[in-house]
Amino acid sequence: MTFVFEDIDDVEMERRRSVVEPLTDAVRDLVDAVIRTEVAEGEIPDVTAAVRAVTERLRSRQSDGPYGVRYTRAGTGMPWGNPAVGVRNAVAPPMRVQAGDDGLRWADVRLGAAYEGPPGLVHGGICALLLDHLLGEAAGADGTPSFTGTISVRYLRETRLGPVHLEARTDRYDGPKKFVTGTLSDADGPSVVADAVFVIPRWARATPPQEAPQ
Amino acid sequence: MTFVFEDIDDVEMERRRSVVEPLTDAVRDLVDAVIRTEVAEGEIPDVTAAVRAVTERLRSRQSDGPYGVRYTRAGTGMPWGNPAVGVRNAVAPPMRVQAGDDGLRWADVRLGAAYEGPPGLVHGGICALLLDHLLGEAAGADGTPSFTGTISVRYLRETRLGPVHLEARTDRYDGPKKFVTGTLSDADGPSVVADAVFVIPRWARATPPQEAPQ
Repeated sequence: MTFVFEDIDDVEMERRRSVVEPLTDAVRDLVDAVIRTEVAEGEIPDVTAAVRAVTERLRSRQSDGPYGVRYTRAGTGMPWGNPAVGVRNAVAPPMRVQAGDDGLRWADVRLGAAYEGPPGLVHGGICALLLDHLLGEAAGADGTPSFTGTISVRYLRETRLGPVHLEARTDRYDGPKKFVTGTLSDADGPSVVADAVFVIPRWARATPPQEAPQ
Repeated sequence: MTFVFEDIDDVEMERRRSVVEPLTDAVRDLVDAVIRTEVAEGEIPDVTAAVRAVTERLRSRQSDGPYGVRYTRAGTGMPWGNPAVGVRNAVAPPMRVQAGDDGLRWADVRLGAAYEGPPGLVHGGICALLLDHLLGEAAGADGTPSFTGTISVRYLRETRLGPVHLEARTDRYDGPKKFVTGTLSDADGPSVVADAVFVIPRWARATPPQEAPQ
């Protein structure tokens, strides 16, 4: 596993983000349009060729492998290829994670046609993806690294497409384990609950935290 | 929740799939290229405009809402907007679900840059998304409808990007509950295990199955 440090400050990072984000947003919009289009079939091959031409242009200079997680000089993470939050990844809605008090992590996301499972409803696996990611962020709020051991996702009822709200926080510690819980809510209230156990790796256990993060 | 029946046979469905699938594949390739490109920043606005032009063309005629799940005359489902398996959805890798003996459902999928969490590794939430979907297909293998109650995803170790193999089947029944298990494996063997409880809705409980599906 390689972590890449880019020799840039956080101002430069924000500038770079502002360049790439409109492109990713445009591709998100294209993903939605491909699902919903009803143009005549005869047009599709031509549209396909236009998409391939754009891709070829972007591939004229590209990294060999996946994006990885990069860091600025100040240590700010740039998980820009991430499928939940990545500003370069059109698979991601994206979820923009916010920090609250006491280690709370939360996000408001709008989920459209690309995240549909049953008609008009969010795919249960998309709820699991977003909760898995957010609970991971909440586990990391205390600064101690940890890895997901188990996550249990309980579906209270269906979740409607549209705006959803997510929250997560670390509830308690037990030795090298962190117990993290979270919820996903649609306009009618909580619809999915998640409980996860995160494990602090041996090399990071020197000073195990005893309190929930502040 | 509305289900839409299209007045087409399965041959026509396959023909329609063959028209739209190359477009979706081209957009998947574009998603990957946006993550990995290193072209000069000056080119990005122009590329963004080209993507928007394609989207506008597709939107000249489109459905009002999400795709839904449609059915052919023969009752074959067309979950083409689905984020795990949808042939119109570039968010989906896609996972192509296969049927084996005794209600087994399995799939081989290649996961690239768009599904990366930690550097070089599959995002845990993507494992959860694919397992959630596949376990749902396994639960439906007996023909009795059911909805996910809870899914527990246990990470045995990290999963490498590249080819992954998934399997799921219904293990046992208990009243209106189906217990379904599954695994996700990379080249080194199983890396994620999932256990789920699916609940048969009251209206479908007239003749509860007592045996695992054949």
